Amino acid sequence: MHPDLNYHRSVLEKISPHIHRTPVLTSSTLNAEFNAEFFFKAEHLQRMGAFKMRGATHAILQLPADAVEKGVCTHSSGNHGQAVALAARTLGIPCSVIVPKNAPKSKVEAMEGYGAKLIYCEATQADREATAADFQDRTGAYFIHPSNDEDVIWGQGTAALELMEDVHDLDILLVAVGGGGLLAGTCLAAVAMNPSIDIYAGEPELADDAKRSLQAGEIIPARASTTVADGLRTGLGSVNFPVIKKHVRDILTVSDPQIIEATRWTWERMKQVIEPSAGVPLAVVRAYPELFQHKRVGIILCGGNTDLSHLPF
Amino acid sequence: MHPDLNYHRSVLEKISPHIHRTPVLTSSTLNAEFNAEFFFKAEHLQRMGAFKMRGATHAILQLPADAVEKGVCTHSSGNHGQAVALAARTLGIPCSVIVPKNAPKSKVEAMEGYGAKLIYCEATQADREATAADFQDRTGAYFIHPSNDEDVIWGQGTAALELMEDVHDLDILLVAVGGGGLLAGTCLAAVAMNPSIDIYAGEPELADDAKRSLQAGEIIPARASTTVADGLRTGLGSVNFPVIKKHVRDILTVSDPQIIEATRWTWERMKQVIEPSAGVPLAVVRAYPELFQHKRVGIILCGGNTDLSHLPF
Repeated sequence: MHPDLNYHRSVLEKISPHIHRTPVLTSSTLNAEFNAEFFFKAEHLQRMGAFKMRGATHAILQLPADAVEKGVCTHSSGNHGQAVALAARTLGIPCSVIVPKNAPKSKVEAMEGYGAKLIYCEATQADREATAADFQDRTGAYFIHPSNDEDVIWGQGTAALELMEDVHDLDILLVAVGGGGLLAGTCLAAVAMNPSIDIYAGEPELADDAKRSLQAGEIIPARASTTVADGLRTGLGSVNFPVIKKHVRDILTVSDPQIIEATRWTWERMKQVIEPSAGVPLAVVRAYPELFQHKRVGIILCGGNTDLSHLPF
Repeated sequence: MHPDLNYHRSVLEKISPHIHRTPVLTSSTLNAEFNAEFFFKAEHLQRMGAFKMRGATHAILQLPADAVEKGVCTHSSGNHGQAVALAARTLGIPCSVIVPKNAPKSKVEAMEGYGAKLIYCEATQADREATAADFQDRTGAYFIHPSNDEDVIWGQGTAALELMEDVHDLDILLVAVGGGGLLAGTCLAAVAMNPSIDIYAGEPELADDAKRSLQAGEIIPARASTTVADGLRTGLGSVNFPVIKKHVRDILTVSDPQIIEATRWTWERMKQVIEPSAGVPLAVVRAYPELFQHKRVGIILCGGNTDLSHLPF
């Protein structure tokens, strides 16, 4: 995957009718505190509440014409499952999601609300994958991977593209890393817009496989993690890792208490409901303030889907 | 007080350097559900988190030059106290706030953070007023009333003015009513922009003095209320009531559970942290849907200051 601004723009043009162009938020309090300028791309205000809508929409738009009959499928009980469900409905494609039996009721209901057919499996990664493979074999449905798919990655990159179209002369982009799709897409789009921009990623200490992968120069698989940033528990993949290795300047880790504090601050002061994964970049700013001083910093607030009955604070 | 668009525009021009021009938010889900178009003026994103910043700023700007020495004062532990404190600091005027001894710590800290001097009094309306009167006598400080003051009312009206500048052809404006400052200001600005617009107010059933006042044709004092919409527990005043009587089409009441449900929906679906008072208009929409069908409806989200450790849901 190599950067080409025209291609990024064509991806954005293709998905634009089906997604929101999210606003950019600022906080003069925060700018004063850190002697820097922060620009928050509000992907928690994206359709279905996360940037994942971009990649899912783009991947489905790239499918052959027979996707209308064969449909798409994925296995995720989180934002990606909802994104594939809503993007498929928006584009008139049948959608099935393989869901572990213990998936939270709210997420299951959201996917059903978006018209997806649910197929239950055991709550293990192995059974998820086996059930998905079996379903694909039987139906010919196209599988949409949450992060390790070129078309998904190009789609996720459009958040950074819009941000850099709206806010000029950014010095730094700071993004959370989980499966690596958003980070790789951000790298490709940002470098296409401005080859000298610095790209940093934030990661929970309790799920620091991306940091260790970058240090080792090869993918270190994610361990089971209980980090409150539940969207960032997954590991990198063969498609996105080379991009990340090439373009990311550093991956900075933060503790769960730091993530919770930054998330709460965003609710309290910016009045924005974000999920803990989206609090990771601000937690990084608080933990490594010297990196951002006097800089213009773009931050992607990746999502806002959180259970109000079980707040982390 | 009579409407004159030029005057409203001059008020907005005067306060503009000191306030945010807040964005207008929409929800396609909500529009589809009610077969209407809703435009939310996001005053929870205003400086200090509420529309009150507008009135306080305007009132202080209208004071004589000796306000720089004599200072301003008010008695409020809520948004108005914070607004006067921040507006005064912004404009370089000393500020004192009379605060009941039992005021929540978070609010007291916010006012101190904005540089106000705090004067504690007993937790009764009588002692508040006596302490404030005594303070004024001793210092000559100018008292800024939260809602029954022409300059405050003109200031609050600028939220509706901005909304109607940004969104054309509104059929209805829907605003919560507590002390009546926002509602009266909205009436004056809205009618100046469009004399045929319909203005409705929403009020908690547990604090329905404005509804009863409108029915009686005279001010019925507010009773002590425990409504979750704590910003709306106060009563109307002699300056704002005639404006409200002349221009408001109806005042519609909603129960506390309806207010809590609408507030929660706004957090969950629009990802916006609003205080319960700001959930009242949406609760009205849900309770009286036929009124809004096929209409373009402007709603003011009046504030977002709420204690995350004590959510109403």
